[in-house]
Amino acid sequence: MKPRSSINTSVSTLGDAKITSPIKDRAQADGNRRFVMDSERILVNIKENDVIKAAKSGRRILSFERAGPRSKIFFDPSKLRCAIVSCGGLCPGINSIVRSVVLALYYNYGVHNIYGVRYGLQGFISSYGHDLIELTPEFVSDIHERGGTILGSSRGPQDIEAIVDALERMNVGILFTIGGDGTLTASTQIADEINKRELKISVIGIPKTIDNDIYLVDRSFGFDTAVDVAVDVIRSAHNEAVSVHRGVGLVKLMGRQSGFIAAAATLAMPEVNYCLIPESDFDLDGPRGLLAALEERLTTRGHAVIVVAEGAGQKFFKKTPKTRDASGNLRLHDIGVFLKEAITDYFKRRDIEITLKYIDPSYTIRSVGANANDDILCGSLGRYAVHAGMAGKTKMLVALCNNHFVHIPMEATAGKRRQVELSSDMWMSVLETTGQPLLKNEE
Amino acid sequence: MKPRSSINTSVSTLGDAKITSPIKDRAQADGNRRFVMDSERILVNIKENDVIKAAKSGRRILSFERAGPRSKIFFDPSKLRCAIVSCGGLCPGINSIVRSVVLALYYNYGVHNIYGVRYGLQGFISSYGHDLIELTPEFVSDIHERGGTILGSSRGPQDIEAIVDALERMNVGILFTIGGDGTLTASTQIADEINKRELKISVIGIPKTIDNDIYLVDRSFGFDTAVDVAVDVIRSAHNEAVSVHRGVGLVKLMGRQSGFIAAAATLAMPEVNYCLIPESDFDLDGPRGLLAALEERLTTRGHAVIVVAEGAGQKFFKKTPKTRDASGNLRLHDIGVFLKEAITDYFKRRDIEITLKYIDPSYTIRSVGANANDDILCGSLGRYAVHAGMAGKTKMLVALCNNHFVHIPMEATAGKRRQVELSSDMWMSVLETTGQPLLKNEE
Amino acid sequence: MKPRSSINTSVSTLGDAKITSPIKDRAQADGNRRFVMDSERILVNIKENDVIKAAKSGRRILSFERAGPRSKIFFDPSKLRCAIVSCGGLCPGINSIVRSVVLALYYNYGVHNIYGVRYGLQGFISSYGHDLIELTPEFVSDIHERGGTILGSSRGPQDIEAIVDALERMNVGILFTIGGDGTLTASTQIADEINKRELKISVIGIPKTIDNDIYLVDRSFGFDTAVDVAVDVIRSAHNEAVSVHRGVGLVKLMGRQSGFIAAAATLAMPEVNYCLIPESDFDLDGPRGLLAALEERLTTRGHAVIVVAEGAGQKFFKKTPKTRDASGNLRLHDIGVFLKEAITDYFKRRDIEITLKYIDPSYTIRSVGANANDDILCGSLGRYAVHAGMAGKTKMLVALCNNHFVHIPMEATAGKRRQVELSSDMWMSVLETTGQPLLKNEE
Amino acid sequence: MKPRSSINTSVSTLGDAKITSPIKDRAQADGNRRFVMDSERILVNIKENDVIKAAKSGRRILSFERAGPRSKIFFDPSKLRCAIVSCGGLCPGINSIVRSVVLALYYNYGVHNIYGVRYGLQGFISSYGHDLIELTPEFVSDIHERGGTILGSSRGPQDIEAIVDALERMNVGILFTIGGDGTLTASTQIADEINKRELKISVIGIPKTIDNDIYLVDRSFGFDTAVDVAVDVIRSAHNEAVSVHRGVGLVKLMGRQSGFIAAAATLAMPEVNYCLIPESDFDLDGPRGLLAALEERLTTRGHAVIVVAEGAGQKFFKKTPKTRDASGNLRLHDIGVFLKEAITDYFKRRDIEITLKYIDPSYTIRSVGANANDDILCGSLGRYAVHAGMAGKTKMLVALCNNHFVHIPMEATAGKRRQVELSSDMWMSVLETTGQPLLKNEE
Repeated sequence: MKPRSSINTSVSTLGDAKITSPIKDRAQADGNRRFVMDSERILVNIKENDVIKAAKSGRRILSFERAGPRSKIFFDPSKLRCAIVSCGGLCPGINSIVRSVVLALYYNYGVHNIYGVRYGLQGFISSYGHDLIELTPEFVSDIHERGGTILGSSRGPQDIEAIVDALERMNVGILFTIGGDGTLTASTQIADEINKRELKISVIGIPKTIDNDIYLVDRSFGFDTAVDVAVDVIRSAHNEAVSVHRGVGLVKLMGRQSGFIAAAATLAMPEVNYCLIPESDFDLDGPRGLLAALEERLTTRGHAVIVVAEGAGQKFFKKTPKTRDASGNLRLHDIGVFLKEAITDYFKRRDIEITLKYIDPSYTIRSVGANANDDILCGSLGRYAVHAGMAGKTKMLVALCNNHFVHIPMEATAGKRRQVELSSDMWMSVLETTGQPLLKNEE
Repeated sequence: MKPRSSINTSVSTLGDAKITSPIKDRAQADGNRRFVMDSERILVNIKENDVIKAAKSGRRILSFERAGPRSKIFFDPSKLRCAIVSCGGLCPGINSIVRSVVLALYYNYGVHNIYGVRYGLQGFISSYGHDLIELTPEFVSDIHERGGTILGSSRGPQDIEAIVDALERMNVGILFTIGGDGTLTASTQIADEINKRELKISVIGIPKTIDNDIYLVDRSFGFDTAVDVAVDVIRSAHNEAVSVHRGVGLVKLMGRQSGFIAAAATLAMPEVNYCLIPESDFDLDGPRGLLAALEERLTTRGHAVIVVAEGAGQKFFKKTPKTRDASGNLRLHDIGVFLKEAITDYFKRRDIEITLKYIDPSYTIRSVGANANDDILCGSLGRYAVHAGMAGKTKMLVALCNNHFVHIPMEATAGKRRQVELSSDMWMSVLETTGQPLLKNEE
Repeated sequence: MKPRSSINTSVSTLGDAKITSPIKDRAQADGNRRFVMDSERILVNIKENDVIKAAKSGRRILSFERAGPRSKIFFDPSKLRCAIVSCGGLCPGINSIVRSVVLALYYNYGVHNIYGVRYGLQGFISSYGHDLIELTPEFVSDIHERGGTILGSSRGPQDIEAIVDALERMNVGILFTIGGDGTLTASTQIADEINKRELKISVIGIPKTIDNDIYLVDRSFGFDTAVDVAVDVIRSAHNEAVSVHRGVGLVKLMGRQSGFIAAAATLAMPEVNYCLIPESDFDLDGPRGLLAALEERLTTRGHAVIVVAEGAGQKFFKKTPKTRDASGNLRLHDIGVFLKEAITDYFKRRDIEITLKYIDPSYTIRSVGANANDDILCGSLGRYAVHAGMAGKTKMLVALCNNHFVHIPMEATAGKRRQVELSSDMWMSVLETTGQPLLKNEE
Repeated sequence: MKPRSSINTSVSTLGDAKITSPIKDRAQADGNRRFVMDSERILVNIKENDVIKAAKSGRRILSFERAGPRSKIFFDPSKLRCAIVSCGGLCPGINSIVRSVVLALYYNYGVHNIYGVRYGLQGFISSYGHDLIELTPEFVSDIHERGGTILGSSRGPQDIEAIVDALERMNVGILFTIGGDGTLTASTQIADEINKRELKISVIGIPKTIDNDIYLVDRSFGFDTAVDVAVDVIRSAHNEAVSVHRGVGLVKLMGRQSGFIAAAATLAMPEVNYCLIPESDFDLDGPRGLLAALEERLTTRGHAVIVVAEGAGQKFFKKTPKTRDASGNLRLHDIGVFLKEAITDYFKRRDIEITLKYIDPSYTIRSVGANANDDILCGSLGRYAVHAGMAGKTKMLVALCNNHFVHIPMEATAGKRRQVELSSDMWMSVLETTGQPLLKNEE
């Protein structure tokens, strides 16, 4: 999806930031460069020709406000109370972000009242009876070593007014939300309700999607760890496949609408023979379909490894009605189980004995702790979220764009997704690595 | 199961071993101790009282022939041809054994004609068209770093006469079989057919069961690696369970008739709250059943981790007829899926919202490479198998008994299994670690 | 070293155990077998011929008292106070033992006053000013996931009378000591002083040596983890060695007086070409010395990997006086650095360019958390230590002998060591795996 | 170091690329976008203000040619012979690059004559007698799973004319060089000599530095893996430090002139208390020096972890003359050993007992296989290097700049380095995470 210049990139604020930041400039070099100005912006499209043409023609160039500490902040740290909430499914690194937010608030800004909201948005709703957790540096000091979320999480929306009531009651100044699409929608609504009530509460989102498909964003936390673990699983599938005659290893990986995990894991573990992703249509039947290709490969090579993203091949379920889960995500039909059965049936019908091993490692991937690379990313996301919130920014996300951390207004990415471009080098490399044919019959 | 003194512990031989072993005694100490005599035997029961009582009363004491190189061997290494076959499901360490057998034959005894039979017993049957692999030190030098079996494997019996025909045709002197119960049965039948035909072919088995339940044997290869990996999976399940309100992590582990993996993994990762094994009966319903206990725990503690061995709770399927798989194993009903559904239904009926994550890591455990401990065990098993075969022993297994490698006649363990004794310290420790109640209603 | 029948195997007690054990028999089978009787003993030598001959002749057979819960205990749990101390260098699993001791005391026996003595024996001496740690189930619940010791440790002796004064002052009933030779000596002296003062304080030792060389004991905790990590280090050394022309990877592993780690790691990672251990004398110079062998190998094969146990080759330092460290261990001269220099000098003198990479991974091995296998062992050691202490046993160690946990009087192992027997299968296998010559010139 | 606009960014070519690329456009989308045009360029500085100002003023904007397959290629694949050489110290990922280059040449372009030059530049010099390796898809298929370099490597320059003689003799069309600064210099000289001789040989460099300090480049291969492993080592040092009273864990990490590994590892494992890098001057003595700070910390907190990059604190060796190693790198004095001794001496002088554990994990980091993230990077670097070479580009590097792969003329980065900017967010975050003071006395 090409970045559209109509995207709003102006970040909302609660008002003028007038308080001198307590951040001690510890830089040994030029202290002035410690603080970032709102006018510093990072280009989204960095191809020279496009940029120069736009600049010369005076057309608007898409760019985002650079993240970082501001010299003036909006909130008085001594009086500020902050809350953090994590929502939706697990993703490696949530605890690292919670830790980073707490330490940055505490040590950089001197904010000492920080609360963890338990079990996602449920934690705001008194009828659930979940207590808050008081988050101190001691409490969070080791949590980055563990997977999961020490705050707890839940799926699904909650009453927005009740949430804002709770924020008022708790006297929260900054709310940090860690979550996916549903959480982004809720965060936007919360910010709107706050605005309606003319409250001074900042809402800062840290977007969570293990699928790595946030629009305009380089890399979301947890993705690299997921690929790391997926590689081990594919190695297992490969070992199973080559250890029998006509062995098929079938691995379903995360990726509801985009195949980044499947594609990256394929590039990192090149034993994969077929990589199936939502972006690339494929046929099962027919002379060029997957089943015929698989038969050919099993006959000539004796084994095959298939990696399928969970959102691939949804066309096969067209006739079955879809439902939504508690988070509002469309419930996908299970392409892994479907393929397992389709392959098994096909070879049974053709009286060819195969041995298929199907692996669905989703929970063992989502629940591990972050690797070093993600730990570093999470640490930065937490710190930048704090800088943004302290400066009075609101209704925005912190994210990585072209290797720089930026502020993205929540509406800029809502409803859009990054996908694997079929003409991109990444996908070309996948096709070369796997050697897979197009898997499409004539049309 | 108490060792029965009626067990046959006499190892069969092909005839007198008259050739001086080419093994150079490289020991720097007393060279005489390098070779083991057939009269050296290792006690099975090593409790002093029992042994002394038996010794004094002249009763037979159960013991096994000690494994190790003999000073005289049966086969002429320069003319000998050997074959190795691996059968059944994957288990970490098969490649390490293959490597060890090849290197011991080649370097210790100077046997240079070693063949890998492809895809299990199928490899003997010409209609399958599988070629043999020539196994050289170069070919096997790195294979221990990989999971799976480079020989390939298959399930199910093949015609015994055809197998012995193939052995004759290939002019094999020693056949090494790596496999489980079915393979043990086939190996016994092969040895019997060889005997009937008055051939001089030794059949040496290396028993494979990831479940670690070989009768009278300390530890079978792959088990320790399986526990290692299972621990990571349980950690994932725990992370999932504690990250939501009323979270349940349910992990199905291997263990068809014995719960050693489930019990050991529970001891190594003490976040498990319920460990369910075939040996210990449990109820689902009723005031003391698992479901009520789980409800109680979810109410008071908010989360639970359940580990279930695949053979546990088979009583719940009594009315459904059982079938057998290609290896002749009884097809178990899937207790993991059953429990997942039973738990989900129970809480739905009681209108209590829970989040259950079910993990079945079987293939990702079976297919990994052996850890250091198993690599060492596999290396020894391979070497001892070679010593036994070279000495003309046949129709026997090599295995570890009370920390010593021994020769066990195939019939001694056939049809019997080691199980977790419910009065043993191991099971007591599991009960203490989990704190789980008996999970049984009054009878 | 052959077990000597003169070894004392009688375990000391503080007096009659008259209190009924609070351990609820949770076994589903015959409850009577839950408790172990003092008369149950495990044979040390389990070779049938030796045992029967001794039994018939009425000669004493070496055996140890079986560990396990006794039906009667000595201490009243409600009044009992216990202390745990860890001494000497790090070893994987200390935290798992501490956790197990605390949980077994708390949940099995209802002992609620458990104290961690900080920084080894220093913690008893008030002048150091170290506070005690109160050990609760909550405090220890996660510690097994971490390496090191949460109690802290220190080397070196402390005044025995002052230690017993502290035990009296603290009103301790059972002292658990985790440590090596020095700690064993101190523990014995403490028990003797307690006896002299006619106090009722039990001293139970859990022997710690990563070298795995406790006399008559199968396996000490941390050893298996050490081998696991050592294997990765050897793989690194091998990668370095093969990636250059005439590359030498030299790895120094633990093993002051015995080469079990070096030998086991060599068996698990068979890229090792020379394994040097304290038990096996070798020459450097001369036609059959290590240097000539290495030159030959580098010429023909282009690379070599050497693993040396820290206690090997101490004869090369004969002229340099030895000193002792704070723990009373003889300070060894550094054979790793010595070999590195000797090899470098040798090839420089011969004008042959080589590239040697020396790796001394000691601290990165000792400081990791226990693997699953060691975690299970540590859990058992902790529980058995508690059972022994509660029963009023004293001046004894818990350890694994022929796969059974036993009680060993402290004096039985003091001053003795298990070593790699040069005629054992383990060492033979090392020689076969490495293909290394005897490395000795004629004498 | 700010990018200088005087940098040459024009890539040299051997001549017009006139042959139609055999790359089959397998993209399912618009095939035209499969090929990249030389006019596509990626901006180096992507801050909007700077770019627009420059664009409007007509000033040159620094940008690099985008990497990727060209529609026309220079070499005829059927006649082309290619060579690959790896030089200098190990770095995770070399084998992955070799594999990728071979597979891309073979399968994408149909080049079947590919040779591995053994042991670095030595492999070109006949007097060393190293044979070439013929590189086939089969040969390289598994090598990415191993650390080291299957080609072998060596340090130091070789005669440039002799190298070009060898290239002529071998009839090589494209030479791929994997190496650091010295290799870059040699590659430039080789390209110049080729040019002088008017040969049509392309020289494509893949820059190797585990230190991640290539000028203008985002990330070099092996860095992420190095940080992964370094994190485990720091955890070990931390475990050692906290397990004794006044424990100091001192870890030396790679980083000759830049502290990226030390800084990144500190961010990923926040137990580090002092992170010392070449870019940040520090004092040892004096009231604000490291030693006083350390004493303060050991007194109040009882332990400390120090991470030092190998190039830090070189001012302490000013009086000792420096030498160069075979690769022409300045031999650094060993800051790790120096600090170990300085700290030990300081506390001995002050009669304060401390326990310091020093870990230098260099070889165990450099020699591991690449992690998934680096494997993907290496795969891309190899493919892009092949695309560049096939198109007749020469005397250039492939590298990652602002997340895009680009062509960088060799002279553009020669003699320059990326360093940790002391005013950057990365270094600020390190200071916040460690809490370390400036460690500088007044000046």
